[in-house]
This record gives sequence, C-alpha cells and structure tokens, in this order.
Amino acid sequence: MRIGVIGATGYTGSAVLGILAQRPGTEVTVVTSRGEAGRALTDSLPHLAGVPAYAGLVLEDPADLEKIRETDPGRFPEVFFLAVSHRASMALAPRILALGAKAIDLTGDFRLKSAAQYPVWYKAEHESPELLAEAVYGLPELHRAEIPRARLVANPGCYPTCVILSLAPLAEKGLLGPDSPVICDCKSGVSGAGKSPVPSSLFSEASDNFHAYKVTGHAHTPEMIQELSLLARRPLRLSFTPHLVPMNRGIEATIYLDAERLPPYQEIRGLYELRYASERFVRVRPEGRVPETADVRGTNFCDVALFLDEGAGILKIVSVIDNLARGAASQAVVNLNLVSGEDEGLGIPLAALRP
Amino acid sequence: MRIGVIGATGYTGSAVLGILAQRPGTEVTVVTSRGEAGRALTDSLPHLAGVPAYAGLVLEDPADLEKIRETDPGRFPEVFFLAVSHRASMALAPRILALGAKAIDLTGDFRLKSAAQYPVWYKAEHESPELLAEAVYGLPELHRAEIPRARLVANPGCYPTCVILSLAPLAEKGLLGPDSPVICDCKSGVSGAGKSPVPSSLFSEASDNFHAYKVTGHAHTPEMIQELSLLARRPLRLSFTPHLVPMNRGIEATIYLDAERLPPYQEIRGLYELRYASERFVRVRPEGRVPETADVRGTNFCDVALFLDEGAGILKIVSVIDNLARGAASQAVVNLNLVSGEDEGLGIPLAALRP
Amino acid sequence: MRIGVIGATGYTGSAVLGILAQRPGTEVTVVTSRGEAGRALTDSLPHLAGVPAYAGLVLEDPADLEKIRETDPGRFPEVFFLAVSHRASMALAPRILALGAKAIDLTGDFRLKSAAQYPVWYKAEHESPELLAEAVYGLPELHRAEIPRARLVANPGCYPTCVILSLAPLAEKGLLGPDSPVICDCKSGVSGAGKSPVPSSLFSEASDNFHAYKVTGHAHTPEMIQELSLLARRPLRLSFTPHLVPMNRGIEATIYLDAERLPPYQEIRGLYELRYASERFVRVRPEGRVPETADVRGTNFCDVALFLDEGAGILKIVSVIDNLARGAASQAVVNLNLVSGEDEGLGIPLAALRP
Amino acid sequence: MRIGVIGATGYTGSAVLGILAQRPGTEVTVVTSRGEAGRALTDSLPHLAGVPAYAGLVLEDPADLEKIRETDPGRFPEVFFLAVSHRASMALAPRILALGAKAIDLTGDFRLKSAAQYPVWYKAEHESPELLAEAVYGLPELHRAEIPRARLVANPGCYPTCVILSLAPLAEKGLLGPDSPVICDCKSGVSGAGKSPVPSSLFSEASDNFHAYKVTGHAHTPEMIQELSLLARRPLRLSFTPHLVPMNRGIEATIYLDAERLPPYQEIRGLYELRYASERFVRVRPEGRVPETADVRGTNFCDVALFLDEGAGILKIVSVIDNLARGAASQAVVNLNLVSGEDEGLGIPLAALRP
Repeated sequence: MRIGVIGATGYTGSAVLGILAQRPGTEVTVVTSRGEAGRALTDSLPHLAGVPAYAGLVLEDPADLEKIRETDPGRFPEVFFLAVSHRASMALAPRILALGAKAIDLTGDFRLKSAAQYPVWYKAEHESPELLAEAVYGLPELHRAEIPRARLVANPGCYPTCVILSLAPLAEKGLLGPDSPVICDCKSGVSGAGKSPVPSSLFSEASDNFHAYKVTGHAHTPEMIQELSLLARRPLRLSFTPHLVPMNRGIEATIYLDAERLPPYQEIRGLYELRYASERFVRVRPEGRVPETADVRGTNFCDVALFLDEGAGILKIVSVIDNLARGAASQAVVNLNLVSGEDEGLGIPLAALRP
Repeated sequence: MRIGVIGATGYTGSAVLGILAQRPGTEVTVVTSRGEAGRALTDSLPHLAGVPAYAGLVLEDPADLEKIRETDPGRFPEVFFLAVSHRASMALAPRILALGAKAIDLTGDFRLKSAAQYPVWYKAEHESPELLAEAVYGLPELHRAEIPRARLVANPGCYPTCVILSLAPLAEKGLLGPDSPVICDCKSGVSGAGKSPVPSSLFSEASDNFHAYKVTGHAHTPEMIQELSLLARRPLRLSFTPHLVPMNRGIEATIYLDAERLPPYQEIRGLYELRYASERFVRVRPEGRVPETADVRGTNFCDVALFLDEGAGILKIVSVIDNLARGAASQAVVNLNLVSGEDEGLGIPLAALRP
Repeated sequence: MRIGVIGATGYTGSAVLGILAQRPGTEVTVVTSRGEAGRALTDSLPHLAGVPAYAGLVLEDPADLEKIRETDPGRFPEVFFLAVSHRASMALAPRILALGAKAIDLTGDFRLKSAAQYPVWYKAEHESPELLAEAVYGLPELHRAEIPRARLVANPGCYPTCVILSLAPLAEKGLLGPDSPVICDCKSGVSGAGKSPVPSSLFSEASDNFHAYKVTGHAHTPEMIQELSLLARRPLRLSFTPHLVPMNRGIEATIYLDAERLPPYQEIRGLYELRYASERFVRVRPEGRVPETADVRGTNFCDVALFLDEGAGILKIVSVIDNLARGAASQAVVNLNLVSGEDEGLGIPLAALRP
Repeated sequence: MRIGVIGATGYTGSAVLGILAQRPGTEVTVVTSRGEAGRALTDSLPHLAGVPAYAGLVLEDPADLEKIRETDPGRFPEVFFLAVSHRASMALAPRILALGAKAIDLTGDFRLKSAAQYPVWYKAEHESPELLAEAVYGLPELHRAEIPRARLVANPGCYPTCVILSLAPLAEKGLLGPDSPVICDCKSGVSGAGKSPVPSSLFSEASDNFHAYKVTGHAHTPEMIQELSLLARRPLRLSFTPHLVPMNRGIEATIYLDAERLPPYQEIRGLYELRYASERFVRVRPEGRVPETADVRGTNFCDVALFLDEGAGILKIVSVIDNLARGAASQAVVNLNLVSGEDEGLGIPLAALRP
C-alpha cells in the first residue's frame, strides 16, 4: 500500500512516519513539507535516518500533488495522512479526494459536524462544508463500523480521545446529561503545542513550571460535547480545562462526576469492564491502580481507572494516553488499518518506552 | 533572635535555612539531624556553604536539646522550626515548649483540631492531644490575630495553603456549603514528597510522566475542610485530588464550582479583590492572566485568578504557590515574624527566580 | 525460541521485555524477580500490560531455576538475559550454563578478561573466574565472528559501547597509543543509575541540575581500555569522566584527541565512513551535523560525528546512544539474534521516539 | 542610586531586576523594551509583580533615553545595565556614556580588546571601537582594581566566567601555555540561549535530550583566551565545546590538563585554596566533593574542585556557576557595587534555591 504524508516534518507527521517505519507492507512514496521541500527527509528528521525505506525520500511541495499524480501515477499514494496545521486541511482534503486517494486528517478541520462551529472555535469559515457530513470521526471504539467505508477520516483530537473514551460507557447508558456538570481537568505534555517556536513552548518557560491555558475555551471542547451528546442522545454540561505539563508526551484526564446521581461504584466498574472487554487498546486498570502517562508512552493504549471519593460523593475517572500516539499518529495508523481492511493492530506498538 | 531548626537537612528544613540566611537579625544557633549529627551543616548542605553565619554550625542530635539548654543556655533558641517527618512533632513540640521556647511546626501534627482525625488520616493516635486546642493554624490571612500570641504554630500544609486561600473569600461570605461540591484538582512538584528515596520520587519514574496519587484520600483533605468549614460556619462537600508534576517546586490548584449557585462573575471578582487588597502575599491576577507556578518560585506569594466557563456554567478558580516556600518555609518565617513582633515581610523573598 | 529474563522488573530487564514484545518468534517463558516473586509480571510492569504474550507470566524466584528445569523442561528457556545487579551474575551465569542454556549477561561481571581487575573496579573477588576466558564481549561491530559460538555473552556497558565505537576506527589503524591522552567526557541520563532508590537519583536532586560523578574512577574505564588496547595492540592513555544529565535516556560522549598527532581531518572522516559503511547500527553523521541523544531514543543506533577545532588543533569525536537500548537491552537482543542465527536486526526498533 | 535597565524583559534583564528588587538603596527609574514599550513592567514580568518598588514602572522605548534625560533629569539613571542582544550595545553604550551615565554591558560587545575579532566571532564590524580600550572586563577576581574607575564595564560571558575562574590560578603561575592543550568541556542550561523562540530552545526539542553545539567555534572562545593569555603572558592552546543540558539554569565546566606537565596535585590544590582564600564568591570545594549546578542556583558563587586521574595522568578541574546569576545578572550587580563604591556583596543572594 502506497502512503503519503502531508506535513511530514511536524511532530504528528514524523510520529506517523515513525510508526509506519515498522508496519509491514507499507510503502511511503510521497512526503511533503511547505518549508523544506527539496530536502532529503532524513536530513530534516535525522532520527529516522536508520529506516532503510526512507533512505531515498525527498520532501516535496504539497502544491505539486496533482503533478505527481499525472507524471508518476504508479507512485501516487492510495492513502494520505494530513498532518498539517488546523485550517490547512479544509482545502487540502478535497484535493486529495479529487485525486482518487483517501485522506486521514489529523487536524480539527473535519471533526465537527456543524459548519457553524468552525468560526466559533477555529476562527475561520469552513472552506469545504460539503465534506463535513461525509467525514467519519475516527475513534475506532465508537465508529468502527463506518471507518472502513470512509474516504475522509477525521482523526480525533488528543484531549477528546482521552475524555470521550473515559466517558463513553456512561454516555451510552444515558448516565450523562444536562443536569449535573462533568468536570474534565486535563493535562498535556508540551509536544501537543507542535513544533512552531512560540514563547510558551520554550524550555525555559515550560520547564519547572505548570499552568492552565485557554481556561475559558479550547477548540477541543465542542468535539467532546458532540461525540458524547451523540452517545447520550441529549445535551451535556461539560467543562474542560487544559494544562501544560513539563514533559514531552502524554495526556492525563481527571474527570469528576456527582456520584450521588450515578449507580453504585461497583456497578459502574462493571459497566466499564464490560464495555472495553474486547477493546485491545483500552485498558481498564485494576482497582486502586492509578494510570500514569509513562505507561502508555509510544503506544495506542488508553488506560482508564475509576475511583470513588466517598467523603465528597464524587466519582473520579482518571485516564491517560500518549498525545502524539493515541492522540494523533498511532490512532491515525489504526484508521489506516481500518480503511485498508487490515488487522486493526498492524504495526501498532504495544510496549511503552518506559522510562 | 536565636533560632533552632530541627530536621535541618530535609527539603523544608534547608528551605527555612535558605530564607533565614538573608533575614536581618537572625542567629541560627542550633541545627539538628538524627541521621547526620556531628557533621558540619554545610557539609550536608553544600549549597548553603557561602552563608557566613552558617560556617561554624554543626548538626546536633535532637535528643540533646535538654542538654544544650542546660549547659549552654545562652545559645538555646527562642524559637524552633520543626521540619521533621509527620508524627515526629507530636512528641517533639511538648519538649520544645517545656524548654521555654516557641515552636513553628511544619508537619501535620498540630493542624487538625480533633484528635480523632489523626488515626484516620495520619495512621497514628495523637501523642499530645492536649496541645491541639492551643496550637494556632499558621495561615496569616486567616489567623493573623492569634499567631502572635501562640507558643505553638501549626504551619499549614502546602495543598491546603493554596486551596484555602483560593476559597476563603467565598467561604467567609457563606457561598460554600454542603449542597454543591467543590472540586479541587491540585498538582505538585516532586519536592513535596520530601528527600526520602522512595521509588515514585525517582527521576526516571517522575520525569516525562504525570499521574494522580492518593486519589481516594490524602491527609491534607481534613485540613482544608476544617478551615473552610470554620469560615463558612457549615459543612462542606470538598473533593481533593493531588497529582505529581515533573518539576521541582510549585503547586497549582484548579478549583471548580457550580456558577449557577453563585453571584455573578464580576461580583465574585470584586469580592476577591477586596478581600485581598491589603494582603501583600496574595496577588489576585488581572482578568485573563493565568497563574503559573514559575511566577511564584522561591517566594511567599499565592497568585489567584478567576475564570467563568459560560458554556458549562462553571466558575474556575486557578491558583499557584511554591510548595517549599509559601507551602512550607517562607510561610513559616512569616509566622516567625508574627510571633516575634517583626514586620510580617522581614526577610521574605519578593522576586521569583524565573526561569 | 524460549527466552528467560532474570531480573525482569529492573530498567534493563523491562527494556529487554519491551523489545522482545515485538520480536517475531519469541516466547518469553520465564521471568524472575527476587523481590516480587509470585506477582503477575504486568502487575509489576503495567506499561507492558498490553502485550498479549505477557498476559499469563508470573514472576518467579531466581532460586527456582533448577526446579523449573526439572519439573517443566518444555518451558525452560534456551537463552537467558541476566539483567541483575553487578556481582550477581558471577554465581548466576555458571548455573545457567550448567542447566544447558545460554546467557546474555547485562552486568559487568564477565566483561573484563582479567580476574584481577574485579576487586579493583567492582570491589569483589570474581566468583567464576574460569568463565572469563570463554565469555565473549558482545559488541557486534568488534566481535561479530565470535558471538554466534558463545555460550556466555558479556553485553557491553553503556559508556563503553559509546566510547569504543567512537574510537575503534582509530584504534584499529594504530592511531591511538600511550603518548597522547584520549579525553572522554561522557554524559548519561538518570536511568543509567537503575531503579534502586538512591538519593542522587531522586527527581528533586537530579532535575534542573548537572554534575560529574566518580571523577577519579568509574568501573567502565577498564572495559574501554581493554577493548581499545586490544584493537590498538598497545596500551592507551584514556581519561573517562561520567556526568549525570536530567533526562531519562541517552548517553553522549565528546572525545578529544590531539589533531597534530593524527592524519588530516578528511582522511579520518574517510576512515570512519569506510569502517562503518556496512554497519547498519552505526551512523556516521554528515559533516556539520551534531548527534543528539533524542535522535537515537529507543533504538540501537550509535551516531558518530567528527569535528576539527582548528584553532586549538583538537579533533573532537561526538557520539550518542540510548543507554537502555544500545547500551543495554537492544544490544542484548542483537546478541540474541547472533547466538540464535537470526538476522542481526530481528525485532530491533529502527525509528527513534522523538520527541 | 538611580538605575536603568535596557532590555528589561529578556532573561538577563529580568534577572538583574530580580536581584535589584532586594538590594538596599536601589531605585530603578528607567526600564526599556523595544517590543513592549508602553506596557507596565509587571504586566510583562508578572513574577516581579510583588515588588513594591516596581509597581509603577512602565517600559519605555530605548530610543527615548535622550528625551528622558532632558525632560526628567532627576529620574535619569546614574548607571545602566545593558541587557540587550549582542551587537546592540555597540551603538547603545556610547549614547549612555554621552548622557553622563555609566554602563554595565551584559552583551559581548566590549569584552574583546581587539576590534578585529568582532567580525570573526560576532559577524559584524565593531561600531564603537574607540571604547574597547576603555572598557573594563568585569570579572572582579581579575580586575577588581580597575572596575571602580570604569565608565563602561564589559560583564563577562557565562562560559568564560566559569572557565577563567577555573584556570586563573594556573595561568597566573605560568602553568598554562601553548605546548599542551587545555580541554574545556562545558554544559549549559537552556536559559543561556535567551528568550527568543528558536526551534532548538523548544521544550520538545531540548527536554530528554543532550547534545553539543557550535562544536567548531563559539563566540565565547576568544574571551577565554584573551583573559587567560593575559594572565599567563603567553599564548594558549584552549579548546572549548559547549553542550545544551535540559535544565533552566547552570553551567558546568569539566576541564582537562596534562598532569604530567604540572606540579603535584596537592601543590595545585594549595595554589587554588590560597588564590581564592579571600574571594567570597569562589568556593574551592573540599577534596572529593563534586560541584553541582544546583548548589549555586540563584547565587553568585563559582564552585571549583580539583581531581587527579592517576591512571591517565590527567588533572580534572570541575566548576559550576549559575549562568543567569554569576554568568550575567548577579555578577553585573557586583560590578554595580564596585563602580558605586558599595560593599561588593550588597544585595547579592548567598543561599542557593535548592531544590
């Protein structure tokens, strides 16, 4: 299978390449970068210099996709990963589809079903609203049936992946609703901010420091609400706060629910264990075990645990993922596996790199 | 003024010494360490080797306090900092008082008013319950009137300092109560775990990692509830979850309240600004500014900010302190200032070391 | 092929398990831990809980190896990894060999050819000196011919792997000798110190800190000198200084040689390129590219670069490895591949996890 | 004394302000920033918001210095700190002097005596070569006699401060010379790269990573050679290699010399102890104690230790400073003390913030 990666030199693009490097039967034939076109891939990404299959790859200009298709159709990818900036996929995805390839989009551009939400959360009118209905939200645990038929997969955001998987069993059972708020206190490693040099991502700013950001609104909020409301079949009252952790990779979510409005704790545990019993990439942790981001580093796992604060009557759901893997690249490769009819786990790393 | 530091080589003890090093009129005459008695102080703590006043100090055995009092009364301290392990102050404090000195206790041993709580939260019967009523909880913003008269000051825990200061203005106005939960999601740097080599404090475990701990119960919980209930004059439903951040110093609290049960946001902002207008060590941050732990590193400040999540109807209170400074050593020195009739800010660092 | 891991819960043992998890045709049948015998493997190492093959493994007591061999010979491993503390393999290796299995030893116990060196560097008489001659030093680039025939492979130390690969091309050409010193300034991540909770490995000690250690003598020194002298066929004057870096994984070596005693710079570059042209796990970096430890994280690569300081007449050789991978676990699995006649790269990760 | 800080919002400028905040008798009357002129100082630097003296300061445009002098002479500073980018002081310093004030320059612009060196190392012709002879190199241990009379102090670079102090006792005794190379392997925290968002300073690039940089030439090299040659009264063969450490603050130097060309080790120790016996900011560490950057964090100390590698015949000098304090801001304030006739240690922090 021929694969293309648009935006190959960013953190998510290179994370996709890192996983594809060891996926059997994968041929990466096109890699692009607007800023570094013409350069050898492994000159830009020296950490991938040992992968024989990447030895000859040269970064191309994404403007040249049509030309490549025409002049060298045998090299043209069947599936593209769009690992570009938010808003850049709006125009890119229709081009990919028009060229007869499928697209797995790692931006937020096709995750929301309502075009009206884009100006609110992404500060831009959607450029291809006609594709929103067709795009499939690529969270396999929720949309496994639809993904294989999709031309355009909207790979979920990192925070939403963690939060939705943490709450889906409750939502599906109608246990979430507008009456009682769901508090989602989330924390992310700095790689989530991408490779662009912005001041808050500097080592000297982020290291030995911790703080919240976008406290009154983050673009991942509507994605969480959309998917969970869909499951719950009613509106939700969900409050999301992201924080920046001085670490490279990892997302942790600590979620708070009013236990007094829920079934007994052991019943909820049973619900989670049952819901995820056959999901190989969700690990419901044994009672008392606290999920740690290091336990999922480099993998596609989402670890979930449940705790009851009896004194305050609060149910705490604690979960972790690797923001660049399950929150981006490895989930995208799972989606590749699904759209190409392969085993869902083909090439997906199982052993976390810890420490 | 002659000062003693019991447990001088731990993180809180050496942080106290670091601050006293530049406090005018301070003479540290006794430093103790059970494990390192007989050693020069600056041999154990080479980072303090440049302080002239510490040049001749030798670590003594805390068992020898009575002997020092007897043989060398002119050297015996007027005030002691107890920077020992939890449960060790229970027996130590009465000895200090019996020797005619005052004690500022940095452990949890005299923070709770009810002796019955100690077996629950500290896994031990209290050894000196008769002192619990006398001990003053050393949070100056709450107990400034009582501290100067105290023989025994219970210096607050790090998490409670941050949480109580964040909620006191609401509690005092009767805006907290048992009906609606207060969610306190807190994060701490690793120095909070102390200098004892336990596996979870190892660099290779804590670095590039993030996780919650003691999710169903942490000994700082009753302290928060005690002080806030006292202010609110009714019970509270408070849920506290601590997390470990890969950083040395700092605590952040993100606190969630149901905004629908509270006065309008701008009214609450006004309440905080008024409450802390004359408090030099609490900075209510201007609207939109998110507190960062690096902004208080090495100082006694507590930075507090308020945010309204309109979509979910949640009030978010975000605050930060330095766990070893405001959460331990610098607050203890403020208490020293109060018990000795000095200006509250004498010797207290004002400029954060950032980066 | 049946594999055993002695000391499965330490950092090198679990790193071996992490790599074996994705090596085709590998069956781990015995895992041991003195301290945690009886516990499920994935209970001790929750980051490996998603590997189906490890689901049923229970940690056993290493004292029981003979019993396992007797009662369950079909489960007994053909090859063991000894991932224990220094000095523990001295008695363990002969037991493994006597049971008919091969041993890949990750300690320093069989690396030095002279039994007389052990009391000097490892503070203990060797318990099995008769095996020293037989043990093969498992650096494939130097001993590829001997490893396949070995019963006992002494997997190289982390620092020596980096230093020896950096200097072998010069040593082999007789360009190193006793006249001019070789200065090896090396830096390591904290995981090199292992999982034992010692004070200097605490996060609060190692983070935001940097320092040398064992400045006048580290047990890896004789290993470097032994192998390089062997190649050079004469004694060497080599000075090694290790430093501790606040990072999890990685070793960097900056090596200094008097350029005035060496052939011209471009000739030396040519020498390195030729020497390593067919070595898949050594990357001689293009001119001007500085090796970074993050570029080899999780992989078996050693990246080497050469620089000429013209002003001072100094040749600088800069190299990096991952201390837990090339410096321990992945090199051990390469040795497994060699002793079992497999392709040298079977199951060895090629793409670094960066960031 | 009225003080001005040009470039107040960068890391060195704000570090100067942090120290001045607690220096008695200091009135900061002018702070400038090209990019943030018009903003309140504590809006840009919220970590200084608790310093009463800074409450009313507004960032001004450095172009307005003459106007301030004219319209508000009573506010015009007597001494300015120039905490700007390299090459910006070349034109700024003569303006300050022309306005009748003194300048303590934290850039490299007046450190080298030979104008011819600037195009080589700073890639620019010097704009004020006439001031080079007048400028005094502000390393108090070497130039204490000249600094008080200087109008323009060239505050030393961070690496040179550490290296020169480590080698001065040998250079002064004629023990350094052109025959034998001095190898200076140095490591710095990321704050040394400043606050400009460049990719290599990103958290996700620098964290859990270690690498050398500018391996064939760094602008601090000529500064080291100039000062040490001056002491030695002959040329030197000095090789300097900087490395980037994932930490905020700190510089470590490990320096290698051929012990066979030097007096016996104990004699050299004696030389260092004697040389620095009356220097309050240089601590010659007791035998066997390895300097750690955390031991000097936030202070003006340079810790130096000597080790003999007997096997290789190498003398190792290991030293540490805080790059933003002794390597920039606190040394600059010591220079302020000297030019204003105050005690050298006025306002200089003595207790390191550790952890």
